[in-house]
Amino acid sequence: MIVAPFGRFTEGRVPDPGIARLFTRENRWQARLDVEAALALAEADAGMVPKEAAKAIALTARIEKLDIKRVLAATSEASHPLVPLIEEFARVVGSQHGGWVHWGATTQNITQTADVLVLRDAHTKIKELLGRALRAGARQARRSAELPLAGRTHSQHAVPITFGFKVAVWIDELVAHADRLERLEDRLFCVLMGGAVGTFASFGAAGRDIEAGVAQRLGLKPMRVPSRAINDGMVEYVLVLAQVAGTIGKIGKDVYALMQPEFGEAFEPIPEGTVGSSTMPHKRNPQLALDMMTMSAELRALAAPALESMLHDQEANGAMTALLEDISASATVLAGDMLARLDVVLGGLELDGERMRANLRLSAGMIGSESLMLSLGEKIGRQQAHEIVFEVAQKAAVTDTPFVELLSQDPVVMSAFSVAEVRELLDPTRYLGRSVEIARAMAQVADDVADRLLKGAPEGE
Amino acid sequence: MIVAPFGRFTEGRVPDPGIARLFTRENRWQARLDVEAALALAEADAGMVPKEAAKAIALTARIEKLDIKRVLAATSEASHPLVPLIEEFARVVGSQHGGWVHWGATTQNITQTADVLVLRDAHTKIKELLGRALRAGARQARRSAELPLAGRTHSQHAVPITFGFKVAVWIDELVAHADRLERLEDRLFCVLMGGAVGTFASFGAAGRDIEAGVAQRLGLKPMRVPSRAINDGMVEYVLVLAQVAGTIGKIGKDVYALMQPEFGEAFEPIPEGTVGSSTMPHKRNPQLALDMMTMSAELRALAAPALESMLHDQEANGAMTALLEDISASATVLAGDMLARLDVVLGGLELDGERMRANLRLSAGMIGSESLMLSLGEKIGRQQAHEIVFEVAQKAAVTDTPFVELLSQDPVVMSAFSVAEVRELLDPTRYLGRSVEIARAMAQVADDVADRLLKGAPEGE
Amino acid sequence: MIVAPFGRFTEGRVPDPGIARLFTRENRWQARLDVEAALALAEADAGMVPKEAAKAIALTARIEKLDIKRVLAATSEASHPLVPLIEEFARVVGSQHGGWVHWGATTQNITQTADVLVLRDAHTKIKELLGRALRAGARQARRSAELPLAGRTHSQHAVPITFGFKVAVWIDELVAHADRLERLEDRLFCVLMGGAVGTFASFGAAGRDIEAGVAQRLGLKPMRVPSRAINDGMVEYVLVLAQVAGTIGKIGKDVYALMQPEFGEAFEPIPEGTVGSSTMPHKRNPQLALDMMTMSAELRALAAPALESMLHDQEANGAMTALLEDISASATVLAGDMLARLDVVLGGLELDGERMRANLRLSAGMIGSESLMLSLGEKIGRQQAHEIVFEVAQKAAVTDTPFVELLSQDPVVMSAFSVAEVRELLDPTRYLGRSVEIARAMAQVADDVADRLLKGAPEGE
Amino acid sequence: MIVAPFGRFTEGRVPDPGIARLFTRENRWQARLDVEAALALAEADAGMVPKEAAKAIALTARIEKLDIKRVLAATSEASHPLVPLIEEFARVVGSQHGGWVHWGATTQNITQTADVLVLRDAHTKIKELLGRALRAGARQARRSAELPLAGRTHSQHAVPITFGFKVAVWIDELVAHADRLERLEDRLFCVLMGGAVGTFASFGAAGRDIEAGVAQRLGLKPMRVPSRAINDGMVEYVLVLAQVAGTIGKIGKDVYALMQPEFGEAFEPIPEGTVGSSTMPHKRNPQLALDMMTMSAELRALAAPALESMLHDQEANGAMTALLEDISASATVLAGDMLARLDVVLGGLELDGERMRANLRLSAGMIGSESLMLSLGEKIGRQQAHEIVFEVAQKAAVTDTPFVELLSQDPVVMSAFSVAEVRELLDPTRYLGRSVEIARAMAQVADDVADRLLKGAPEGE
Repeated sequence: MIVAPFGRFTEGRVPDPGIARLFTRENRWQARLDVEAALALAEADAGMVPKEAAKAIALTARIEKLDIKRVLAATSEASHPLVPLIEEFARVVGSQHGGWVHWGATTQNITQTADVLVLRDAHTKIKELLGRALRAGARQARRSAELPLAGRTHSQHAVPITFGFKVAVWIDELVAHADRLERLEDRLFCVLMGGAVGTFASFGAAGRDIEAGVAQRLGLKPMRVPSRAINDGMVEYVLVLAQVAGTIGKIGKDVYALMQPEFGEAFEPIPEGTVGSSTMPHKRNPQLALDMMTMSAELRALAAPALESMLHDQEANGAMTALLEDISASATVLAGDMLARLDVVLGGLELDGERMRANLRLSAGMIGSESLMLSLGEKIGRQQAHEIVFEVAQKAAVTDTPFVELLSQDPVVMSAFSVAEVRELLDPTRYLGRSVEIARAMAQVADDVADRLLKGAPEGE
Repeated sequence: MIVAPFGRFTEGRVPDPGIARLFTRENRWQARLDVEAALALAEADAGMVPKEAAKAIALTARIEKLDIKRVLAATSEASHPLVPLIEEFARVVGSQHGGWVHWGATTQNITQTADVLVLRDAHTKIKELLGRALRAGARQARRSAELPLAGRTHSQHAVPITFGFKVAVWIDELVAHADRLERLEDRLFCVLMGGAVGTFASFGAAGRDIEAGVAQRLGLKPMRVPSRAINDGMVEYVLVLAQVAGTIGKIGKDVYALMQPEFGEAFEPIPEGTVGSSTMPHKRNPQLALDMMTMSAELRALAAPALESMLHDQEANGAMTALLEDISASATVLAGDMLARLDVVLGGLELDGERMRANLRLSAGMIGSESLMLSLGEKIGRQQAHEIVFEVAQKAAVTDTPFVELLSQDPVVMSAFSVAEVRELLDPTRYLGRSVEIARAMAQVADDVADRLLKGAPEGE
Repeated sequence: MIVAPFGRFTEGRVPDPGIARLFTRENRWQARLDVEAALALAEADAGMVPKEAAKAIALTARIEKLDIKRVLAATSEASHPLVPLIEEFARVVGSQHGGWVHWGATTQNITQTADVLVLRDAHTKIKELLGRALRAGARQARRSAELPLAGRTHSQHAVPITFGFKVAVWIDELVAHADRLERLEDRLFCVLMGGAVGTFASFGAAGRDIEAGVAQRLGLKPMRVPSRAINDGMVEYVLVLAQVAGTIGKIGKDVYALMQPEFGEAFEPIPEGTVGSSTMPHKRNPQLALDMMTMSAELRALAAPALESMLHDQEANGAMTALLEDISASATVLAGDMLARLDVVLGGLELDGERMRANLRLSAGMIGSESLMLSLGEKIGRQQAHEIVFEVAQKAAVTDTPFVELLSQDPVVMSAFSVAEVRELLDPTRYLGRSVEIARAMAQVADDVADRLLKGAPEGE
Repeated sequence: MIVAPFGRFTEGRVPDPGIARLFTRENRWQARLDVEAALALAEADAGMVPKEAAKAIALTARIEKLDIKRVLAATSEASHPLVPLIEEFARVVGSQHGGWVHWGATTQNITQTADVLVLRDAHTKIKELLGRALRAGARQARRSAELPLAGRTHSQHAVPITFGFKVAVWIDELVAHADRLERLEDRLFCVLMGGAVGTFASFGAAGRDIEAGVAQRLGLKPMRVPSRAINDGMVEYVLVLAQVAGTIGKIGKDVYALMQPEFGEAFEPIPEGTVGSSTMPHKRNPQLALDMMTMSAELRALAAPALESMLHDQEANGAMTALLEDISASATVLAGDMLARLDVVLGGLELDGERMRANLRLSAGMIGSESLMLSLGEKIGRQQAHEIVFEVAQKAAVTDTPFVELLSQDPVVMSAFSVAEVRELLDPTRYLGRSVEIARAMAQVADDVADRLLKGAPEGE
């Protein structure tokens, strides 16, 4: 398996999200046995399989009872993804009842339903990780709700904000993703149990009952049409994770930028002993922020082939199935690794309020140009005020002259305000708008959503 | 970003979906004036702008009152996307009130909110087009609910289905997309009205009230955090349209395949006079199905850059904004063109039931191997039955001998069934499972959703 | 980034291309030691490192001499991808000379140059696999050079071709890819050896000499500017492999389609014992063709993030480096797996000439409409001939009447030809054009290129 | 056509690259007439078409002689991309010779060859634009060859460079792209002239001669196999342009970052009168750098569907053809717009050397840690030197203490150097390595390649 074929050297910096191990062969095969067991029991209820056979099948459905090597050898021989497992399973169930294993089912009924079970476990972990990250975000937003720094658009200072407001923006998208993840569960966590192409022909009249029985036993839903050519639910899941990756990529990019010596405003945690470079001993590189950016690109790159996998032929094209299987597993592993890093970064973010204030002063007051213009506009109209302040500000920039100095030479500005009033209007800490309230409100939203996501989750971190 | 630079030569075959014309400069600029008007009125309510100024602004906010050339010339001069329009607008409002135009707003507040208005109109048309296509699909599903043909997986005959079942599969994904389109409206159709970076600083204490006033006037919602760095709602919209494109690409591919002379089962409508080739006069090519495949690829290709556009820097990066603007316009136009073709194809699909039956006979009964195996399995166990039927079927294929002939030579099979029973078990028309019921049920689902989508839509196509 | 997280169940069907194992930790670390050794020796030549130290370093540079566990533990501690390996290496070299390990180099100098060495080995295998596939293609093209079948465009019969011509089309793109792969070697197989950002500052005046010494020892080239922000060569490699994937995807799609019972013209080899379905014993599915389609999508999906990885910041962004590392490893593994399948499919393709002839007759002569039209056109002009044959052919299609029957009722046609002449003009086997010559010529081209690619390669598959 | 559906508001800032207008209907249709003319003349040479007919066809082949409205109406009626144009053309040629128009050709022979002619004109402009940008880059590299600033990796100061070195890195990739663009001309600029599927059947024995005649007249090459299912040359072109977009995106990102008030080192030209914001009069935003980033994403997004367009079915799938047509036109237009901006940015880049020096001092000497470590290492070994300098540097960062102060307290460092020597070792302007030489060498390379690209190009911009 290659998701990061070489591992990531930062693995020691984050707790294991535990998703990759869900996709081991053993775990996936166990899930297949679970589905076969549920199927046999449901078929027994429908009178299609003898009760005792079903019981024997259900009791035997443990991967540790099977001879894995035998299955692997037979797989190589038969070039089939499931039949060798079924045959070995039937063998272990015994000659009396083994013949009822897999009755009426097609391979995809078992493999896809089993993969959905595995995916559900991954999904549970993803929601927990997101919940933890939201909680860390809430703490940061509260802690820094009143901490002023420059708001920046298109690389330039715009108007002041507080750091908590910045975190609120991050939280907003994360909360929306939480909603998306929860909302698609009904369409995602379904059994595929309609036989070879979804007509239930092999199950006779009891088809929908058997489907319901399997679904109920596994805690899944039935599909409206149990066709394996329908895969929009899984594709949507990958797309939502890709959106999560979009947001986390943005946060990684922000932290990466704020760590620059020219900014020096915020830093991901760098534990003692961390080495930045083999040749530049002073280096304190972002590492988890880099990972977030790398993984963001890797996960977003799965959206295109996921969409391509919708192009089944007629009742199915196995190439599309295999494609989406590979993609969905990779996407969940990446999502887990990315969220684990987000949690650590948000949880340990170090802020330098002094430096933020220093940077606010970089434009010598020009970050307050809107504030000044609007006050001036109230007296002489917005249009004219914009023109005057625009001229002064551009001149200040081009000639590298302090803004206030030029303003104090402008007759219109001076007819409206004293120099002291101008200075006050330009004071960034007086022009934070609703930054503080928004930061606190979003911290609350984040905590509420985190409560929901973490309900029943194990403690820790 | 691209939408058919040269038009499509098939345009004469489909009604104009009317989406491209929503994106003309005039229509987009009018929407901006609408937002400026709503803003002035909301600010007047908040006591921030004189009532009379707001009234004058609202009354003047018609694109036909402006000198477009003047705006274009000034745009080239100032290299700014909005200021020249505002200045011209203010000029026409007149010197007394014009100064109150755009009070406290940043460019993006106006342009993004206006684009959302345009997008909402496009969205309305997209839902109508989808509604019409679903209705056409419902008709087809009902009409062909009982029409048997080969179900095919991985290019090979699997088990029989009916054509209506095939349509039901198409419907299922389309219905899911309808849900997705409706579900995201709340997060998509929002005003962005929090000033330069979303802190409301320029609106003073009345910020949230002004935002609410603008939202209410335009029939939109406020944002939790009105930051222009938040764009997941629009990205999600593009992703949902890309999923629609996945489904329509699959349908196009299916029709394309079924039209092949080797299949001859279903055909998109080919009006008299249609020319297929300049050199091969007999050619009756798929055209709309081709378009559906082309457009599917073009729309799906927008998912990756849409996700990339989430990578804003700090409080905004205008490159990401421009990218997503281009993408979302292109995506809606493509979606409309694609749905218009889907509607025509589904509405006019010609089916050849004779040929379907002939094709069912192509495998000389082997399409019934599951049916036979399960009946045999009831007597001797599934595993052994699979082995026996497998051996016979593979031999039939390799030696090109009729399946029934070989079966009738097999002692185990013959000890269980007579040849006549074997023939009956292999009869594909007796092994349709729930195909018919599923086709009819999904026709009903399609009609119900279409009713919802078409509520209030103009009659006719 | 993903390469079949669960393996492929078809692995027993193809020889191991041997690329995945090049990317084991051991092999990659050994390559790093090789680079450190070459560096020390080159620095010794430049008088920067004592000769004896260099000798000791070079002698010790074997991964089996190192304590891997120690390195892994230190990696987790230091969160650095190379320093722990260097420290362990230096420790084993011993206190006298160990201090000269890695002198003047930055991490990326070692890791990237080492990865290039690994990639070169992968590239050698890829060229061999492509050579073998071309040789198999040449055999097929020759064998089937004269075998007629329907040429098909847009799913419809166009004019006749031979199967060898079809193979010639496949060969043409594969040969172009061979050229691409060879052409980019000079820009791809380079050392990165200019110190921290590529200015050679740490190497003093001897920088370019040391670079040359390392390059010469490793059989690589120097870079024009040894900056790690330059990665277009590696990106191009991924893009070329993605193009190979485009071609192989197309071939897979063609074989998949021709295997359909409705076509029955060509088949990938299906060894005895292969199981197609757990429930439909008759199934003889394409498997390797499916793999080719799946892998094609997976490899093509790497193009977008590879291009994104060009977006370094200033002198480097490690996230882009990590991204491209993951991508390039995944791409080469996928390319190998895909080419291995192509070779088996092309080598074992089974053709059914009878069925091809039968399918040619499907349109009852209409596949000869161009032939007829041109001969008629010589007498009455192309335009008019097109109109007449068009009308007749469309009528034949719509009314399901034999083409010849309608032609024999057309006065203009009949004034030009007898019915026997019409039949002859419509005979597809007389209208093969240069199919046979092209098939043979491309077989020769394929063999020539294969000779070049396989020069020095081990015999056999 | 939507490449930037709304235009770009920055259009007034750059000269029109003139590529979009190559893709007007008139220009593309004229190219089709040119191909028809060349075909008729070549067929006359081969004795297949009367000399006089060919002459008449060639003389009439001017778009202004045709009734465009008539063609458009017929296109809508026939739903065919070429036949109506041919019919109108034949009509104007006249009844005597018009019947010989398009003899033996299939639509794609004409449309694809004509598109190649248009593309060649676009390609010529792209090479010129790249040549101009390289010349501007050469000037910048020379001008700033000795201007020191901080080299930055992973957002942190690494070692010093000069600005000219930074430009040299940009130049290196651009030069590699120039090579790529030139190298693919032979495979790209080909006629497709083998009849319906490429067998030359319609041209009789003279097929290859006619192909050669058309190719020679149009200045194009023949194809090895003239199949329309072969499109790797065009796909490669899109991929190379996407790589150009990768590099230009990186340059845009760099300029964008350096313009930040926290950096203040380099600026794209901002002509007087440029407005940055409707509400923040002080704003001096990057605009062309933003465009470069937007267009980079838009062009890179075309790589994936271009690769998908390789998935033809059998002898052709028109959906793939249409897809690639749309993509290649969009890609060339985007490439032109992007290169025009690159030229203006590189040509007008303003540098602030003072600020660069100030930023170099930000780390209080730590940017010289490698320099110090290597000199120390010569005395005590690299390993130990790294450990000591690492400890000091990390302490300096964590405790915010000047680096030199801590170094001067370290007994090992002080036993090796005086404080003055330490200061000298940390002086960034003494640690520029080969920056200056590399900058100058790459300026020369850029000029040489520009000479080659601009040979024969019109003067000026």
